Parts: sequence; structure tokens; C-alpha cells
Amino acid sequence: MTTSDISRPTPGSALAAFGVREFVSRLQRIAGDANVVFHPDDLLVFEYDGSIDRGMPRAVVFPLNTHEVSQVMALCYEAGVPVVGRGSGTGLSGGAISHPDGIQIAFTRMNRILEVDRENRHAVVEPGVINLDLDTYVRRYGMRYAPDPSSQRACSLGGNIAENAGGPHCLAYGTTTNHVLGMEVVLEDGTVTHLGSLARETPGYDLRGVFTGSEGTFGIATRIMVRLLPVPEAVKTYLGIFPDVESACTAVSTVIGHGIVPAALEMIDALSIRAVQNVSDAGYPDDAGAVLLIELEGLSDEVDEIGLEVEASLWDTGASQVNAAAEAAEREQLWKGRKGALGALGSLAPNYYLVDGVVPRTQLATVLHQVAEVGRKHGIEIANVFHAGDGNLHPCLLFDEREPGALEKITVAGAEVLEVCVAAGGTLTGEHGVGLEKKEQMPLVYSEEDMAVMRKVRDAFAPRNNINPGKIFPDGHRHHAEAHRPAPGMYA
Amino acid sequence: MTTSDISRPTPGSALAAFGVREFVSRLQRIAGDANVVFHPDDLLVFEYDGSIDRGMPRAVVFPLNTHEVSQVMALCYEAGVPVVGRGSGTGLSGGAISHPDGIQIAFTRMNRILEVDRENRHAVVEPGVINLDLDTYVRRYGMRYAPDPSSQRACSLGGNIAENAGGPHCLAYGTTTNHVLGMEVVLEDGTVTHLGSLARETPGYDLRGVFTGSEGTFGIATRIMVRLLPVPEAVKTYLGIFPDVESACTAVSTVIGHGIVPAALEMIDALSIRAVQNVSDAGYPDDAGAVLLIELEGLSDEVDEIGLEVEASLWDTGASQVNAAAEAAEREQLWKGRKGALGALGSLAPNYYLVDGVVPRTQLATVLHQVAEVGRKHGIEIANVFHAGDGNLHPCLLFDEREPGALEKITVAGAEVLEVCVAAGGTLTGEHGVGLEKKEQMPLVYSEEDMAVMRKVRDAFAPRNNINPGKIFPDGHRHHAEAHRPAPGMYA
Repeated sequence: MTTSDISRPTPGSALAAFGVREFVSRLQRIAGDANVVFHPDDLLVFEYDGSIDRGMPRAVVFPLNTHEVSQVMALCYEAGVPVVGRGSGTGLSGGAISHPDGIQIAFTRMNRILEVDRENRHAVVEPGVINLDLDTYVRRYGMRYAPDPSSQRACSLGGNIAENAGGPHCLAYGTTTNHVLGMEVVLEDGTVTHLGSLARETPGYDLRGVFTGSEGTFGIATRIMVRLLPVPEAVKTYLGIFPDVESACTAVSTVIGHGIVPAALEMIDALSIRAVQNVSDAGYPDDAGAVLLIELEGLSDEVDEIGLEVEASLWDTGASQVNAAAEAAEREQLWKGRKGALGALGSLAPNYYLVDGVVPRTQLATVLHQVAEVGRKHGIEIANVFHAGDGNLHPCLLFDEREPGALEKITVAGAEVLEVCVAAGGTLTGEHGVGLEKKEQMPLVYSEEDMAVMRKVRDAFAPRNNINPGKIFPDGHRHHAEAHRPAPGMYA
Repeated sequence: MTTSDISRPTPGSALAAFGVREFVSRLQRIAGDANVVFHPDDLLVFEYDGSIDRGMPRAVVFPLNTHEVSQVMALCYEAGVPVVGRGSGTGLSGGAISHPDGIQIAFTRMNRILEVDRENRHAVVEPGVINLDLDTYVRRYGMRYAPDPSSQRACSLGGNIAENAGGPHCLAYGTTTNHVLGMEVVLEDGTVTHLGSLARETPGYDLRGVFTGSEGTFGIATRIMVRLLPVPEAVKTYLGIFPDVESACTAVSTVIGHGIVPAALEMIDALSIRAVQNVSDAGYPDDAGAVLLIELEGLSDEVDEIGLEVEASLWDTGASQVNAAAEAAEREQLWKGRKGALGALGSLAPNYYLVDGVVPRTQLATVLHQVAEVGRKHGIEIANVFHAGDGNLHPCLLFDEREPGALEKITVAGAEVLEVCVAAGGTLTGEHGVGLEKKEQMPLVYSEEDMAVMRKVRDAFAPRNNINPGKIFPDGHRHHAEAHRPAPGMYA
């Protein structure tokens, strides 16, 4: 290593005191020379995740097993060097962004599926396993892993646990916490412990549950036991085109009101429809005000039977067109517009800022109006692509980062959108986490007492707050915000 | 108060230092004279819960609202007097048993249903609301509260949260933790805080989840927000009579293997069948080896369709008789044997000790053999009444408390039954909690490190461990065990 090979830590930081060079050597001794990255050029790719925040780690280590993770954690703990786990870096709230004088542990090499038990329907995996890879692997045995974040082609199971990831099909099956049975976990001092188990019941406290969604601040999961579900016999997808968002929202209420629990219930609004049609013809009419996608899963006859009710509900609530598909390729065609909607926003503006808010399902139409009002006030176009079934909105604020003040404006407007959600009885985040992005807004939903209890629980796992510090809780440091470029790799 | 009106606390205890009389006066000032019980005769009924453990509180207070609970908690905290919340006292692991120098807070007066929101399908209740009362109340609006512990006619929502109560229908709908959206909670020092919310998503840590099932050691829930489900259009119950437990277990695997998720899947074995028939004729043949109950819920056509598969599966796996019922009264008739089974055990022996263990569903038949082996070894008859669908066993060890050494023998045998469950990949408790009963067996499933993390999380909520101390964690004090008398009020 020469001087130019390493970046210079902030004077006075723990890493500066330890010496980056010495620290890197120690990491290399643990994981092998080839498995530690520290040259500034090599670190560039680790500065980003899917959020608008940035933070370059001083080094990234790629452990191979729990023992190496434990040693790295113990080293960071002793040295007081902040550490954060990183799966695939697809998170949308800055959860995997490094402290400027910290390091990252990346799980690229810990990506093995260790066990699949068909009879008891569970799998044991390492944290770096990609969500879709697990699902694809177990489908050969007639099973599936249900949580399906839109980033499922890229995101890792470890990251899914950190953020308690959701996805379109979580309407029927619940989020990641409903599918993680147990974990082997490394705490900040390197201690290895176990939360939950394959037994599906947890004597004593449900630490498995509180660890899931703790955004990487409690520890690092090094082995993950997940529940698998049988692949449904039949899947049927319905697409309804509506004149406006109100009538589509009425369709949502009607379907749910019939006691039907679709596997997915997704909506895109007029502006998103325009974006989709700009990019490639999805068959949506020019004057479509909303597109609603409803997917049913179950036994064949059951799906057909319930499907009739869904179709009737769509017509009854004012759909101008209803398409249905049962074959995989045709269903994929119906999903195309929804899945490509975020990428297509690039046809409307160079950048967008995606807000993740939740509202009671009955407030959907009202809140969408208020969101539009926020947009008008700030002169910002807002496209909506969202999980209608569980009231999880994703307003996308369009902007051009080259315009002076544009980023500041959308940041303010994004905060106002969340205030609207909270005022309607909703909350700050449906599935993307708080991270850096929303920490200053936590007081909208929690009192000081409420957050004090949360901090104490964090201290029970990580008393030195050395894992992923600076996240979740307001501390007056709004992180540096940069523009979010729409790209095929962006998800919601 | 005269000297005989109050019980004498242990010399040296915090309560002795404070003075029982003065303490009772303070409680009276908070809740009113009529709402504090302290005479030893009046306290007798608070010595028991549904477990074999005993412990008489020095006083019981009946608060009316959160403010009073907070004041009582603050008083206990300052005085160092242990306190435990009590719902209906139906728990089976000693969760509500008082510390000998502590007091109880009973929630008899906090039993109001505060809000039912039909559109968003939730209710807000006080902790003393009886489980079945909530369910009955919301059914008039076409909704239901899904978790249905066998004690649902008596048990309270607050107690359900403490124990994360299950029930026959939790197979399809999940346990209490899947139905509690949020809580107002009083911590040991009297602080009032909020966990979760009606918004169904929890930014930051899921403290709602870890509080649920914390067996009254984290705090006291004073207001509870629960999710309601629509009442299914149709319910159909199937009863299959099998020559032995093995074939009935094969039926369970076959049904589940078809991807069917029944609302309930219950079994009783030959000895339980004999007990049921002793008490009143449920129509079971004398040579029946197992009775399997399967309940389906959903849309009418869906239930009929899946019902055909269930019926076929029962016949295919060796059922000698299959009955089906769709009308409420007839269904009730099919459930009668299962629901009356524990009470009927009184026809076989004066006492029974009910063990709550969990095993992988595929191990059911094997473990039942091993359980029988434990019985033979100790000369104890064991009847089994259990939730087959999720592998939650309830072996009932029959005995006569008047026989010298009988209680010690069943305690040892009960521990061995749990060891068998754990060895088969299962765990200590499916739904009854650890409490006093199983705390010494926690090391069977957790290492010292694992339990150390649990204790630290408890300390985050209750650093002085002043709420429900002496529960969950092994401390070498096996609690005084007394006989368990079968009675109509005993549940599983």
C-alpha cells in the first residue's frame, strides 16, 4: 500500500487513531488479502445504495463464514470503527450507506443455499443469497419464498431482513418477518447468538421478530432460516382500466369488502400510464386515469370462482376495460406496465424521488388528492405507482437535478407528502425503512418516550451503537442528498 | 385495618420496609378504597392461575384507566415492590402468579371495547376485554377476532398479548402477534408509551412484536389495537375416525401436502377418546385410535371444492368413518368431543398435568410414540389432545395427587416429554408460555449467550426487573408445584 492507495480518515476519528493501513491489514488477516477492498477507486461502487444518500466506506471486507464476520465485528468493536452490513445495495432509505469513517461488510461470498427441507417446508441460507435465486431454486420442489420486493432479482435475504422487505404479494402473505423462522446473528462485539428456530415457536421473547426490520443496527444475520410455501395450483391476473383513481380505489374497497384477499393489488395512475405508454405500448388507452392489477392464487376452481367476483367488481365500479390471464406469459404481459412504470418515468423527467408512505386503505383517494395538491403547490409533477391493497403509496416526485434548488424543493415536498400520510392516520414507511432518509421525520409518529424505548432496545443488542450508527433516530444531521437517477435498476 | 386484616410480608422485603398498611393506603388513594383487595381471605382467588404453581399477592388493585395503572406502577417502582398484571388468570404456565411479596394489577374494570372501525377493520379495546366478547361483538358487523384460545370464553386480550396466545384457528390465521396492531403500554416506572399503531406498519423497531409474548415482564398494555378479519362466507367441519394415530398423522400430512391450509386441524388420541366416551357419547367407536377434526373456511364454492379433497384424503389414509357438517349446530356437535376432551380426563384420573410442546409436523407420529414410551417408563398414562396442524402437542399426564410422590413423578416425566420434543427438532412451548413452569428448561433450547440477549432486551423495557420477576429465565428456584385438578375451566 502506498499513500495514494488508501483514503484519509477524518482526523480524530477512531479509524485515524487506529491507522487505516493497520486496520486494513487486520481485516486482510481475517478474510484474506483478496477479500478486502480499500483503494478509493474500488470503493466508489460502495458509496451508493438505492437511496439519494451517499457515504464512502474506508474499506469493504467480504467474509466467507460466520467466524470471519465475528472476527471483523470484534475488531471494529475494539477499535470503535463503525461497521455496516451490505447485501446488494438496493435499499431505498440509505440503510447500507457507510459512516464516513467506517467500513462495510459485504455478503457477496456468503451466498449459499445450505438446506431445503421439502417435508417441513423450510430453507436455511446465507445472508448473501439473492431473493429470486432462493425462490427459483425451491420452485423445482413445488415451493416458493413468498416475499417478493420489486428488487427481488438483485436484493439479498440479509438485506430483506434488515428492512423487513415487502413486495406486491405481501398483501396475502405478509412481509419478511412472517417468513423468517430463525437466525444466527453476530452482535457488535463479535458474539454469535441465535434468535428463533426452525421450530416456528419462540419460547421467551420474540427477538427474531424485533431483529427483523432493525435496519442493520442490532447485528448481522449470518445464517437465515425461512419458511417456504407451496406453489399455488393456479394463478390468475386481472387488469382493469379506470377513468380515474377514485373509481379504481372504489374497486379496491369493493374487492376487499367481499372478503377476497388477492395475492396482489397494485395501481398506477394517469401520469405513470403516460410514462409507460411513452416507452412502449402496454395497450393502455390515452385517457386511462388508473390501471388496477389484481392477482389471485389458489386451487384452480377457487381462483376461477373468485375471479368471477373480481371481474364483476371491476365492471361494477366503472372499469372501461378488463383483461384476465391465467398463462404465465400472458400474465407477464399484464404486469409489464406496472413493473416497467418506474423505469418509464425517465421519459417524463431526468430524475424522480420516490416517497414511501402508508395510509388506511379507505383514505387512498383522499390522500392521493392531497398529494397532488402538494405537487401543485411546489410546481412538481407527481406520478403514483403503488401497492393499493395495503395502502402503501409510492408518490414519485419528478424533477431535474440540473435545475438549481430542484433537489431541495423535492426534499421539502417529499416531507410534506409524508405529513399528509401521517395526518390521514397513516405512517412514514411501508416497506423501505427509515434509514437516513426519514430519521428526522420520526417525531411525526413517535414521541420522545416512544423513541427512548426503541433506543434502549437497540442498546440491548448493540450498546456501543457501533453497527450502522446514525440511522433511524433524529439527530439533526440531515444527510447530504443527491439526485436519484431513474434507471432499470430502480425499484418500488 | 386491623392486624388480622392484612398478611405479613417477608421480613426484609421491600414491602415490609414500606409497610403493607401504608402501601395499601397509597393504592387506595390511587384507585379508590373499593378497588383494592388486601384481606388474606379475599386474596385466595388470586393465588391461582391455570398452572400448577401458586403464589399469593399481598394486595390486588383494580384500576379504571391508564392514569391509575401508571400511578400504581410508579408506586411499585419507587417502593421496589414487585408487580404483575392479571387478566382472567387462565394462563397455563404461571404467568400471572404473584411474587410472594408483590401485588397484582387486575384488569376487571378495564374491559371496554372503545372503538370498532368496520371499513378499516380494526378495534381498540382495554386489556380486560374477554376474547370471546370481542369476537361476539364484532360479528354483528360481519367481522371477527381470529385468535381463539380454548379459554376464549374467559381469557382477556391483555393476557392473550402477554402469552401471545394461540388457538385451534391460528393454524390459518396466526397467533395473537399477527393480530395486534399497536398498544398503549405502561412501563415499570409508570411511563406511558406507544408501540405500533393502527397504520399496520411500524417505522423503526417492531417493539409491538417483541412486547407480544413477553409474558408480562416488559410492561402492562392498557389499550390495545387489533386487526379484525371478515367472517368467512362458509365454514365446513370434517371429522375422521382412524384406527391409530399413525394413519391420522398421515392424513394430516396428506391434506397439508395438497397445499390446503385448513382453519383448524385438531387430533385426539385413543385414551382421550375413551375419556370423552366415558362422559357422554360423542359417537366415537370403542376401537377408535384417533379422531381428526378439520375445519375449512372461505367462500361457499371454495369450501365445497376443497372439502372434496379433504374427504378423499381422509378415506385414502385409512379413515373408518368420515362426517361432515356445514350448519353451526352440527359443526358444534363434531367439535364437542375435542372441546370436552380435557374436562373428560377427570373420568380417568383425579388429576392431569398438561405439557405444551412443539415438534415438526413430520415428526408427530414418532414423537407420540416416544411420549408413550416416557409414560410407560414412569408408569403414567398419557392422553393426547392437540393442534396437529402446527405440530403443537398437549400430552396430558394422568395422576392422583393423593399418591405420595405422584406430583414429583409427573413433573420429571413432563420434563422428559419436552426433552423428546426438543430432540426431534421442536421446542418447549407452542402457546402457553414459559412462565414459572418451564424456566429451568430454557437451556434446552437456548445458550447462555442467547438468554443474555433476551435479558438485556427485557432490561431495555424494565431495567429494575420489577414487573413479573422470577419468570422465563432459569434461576434454580423450581417453583412449588401443586396438583392440577381437571375441571370444566381447564383449557388447552
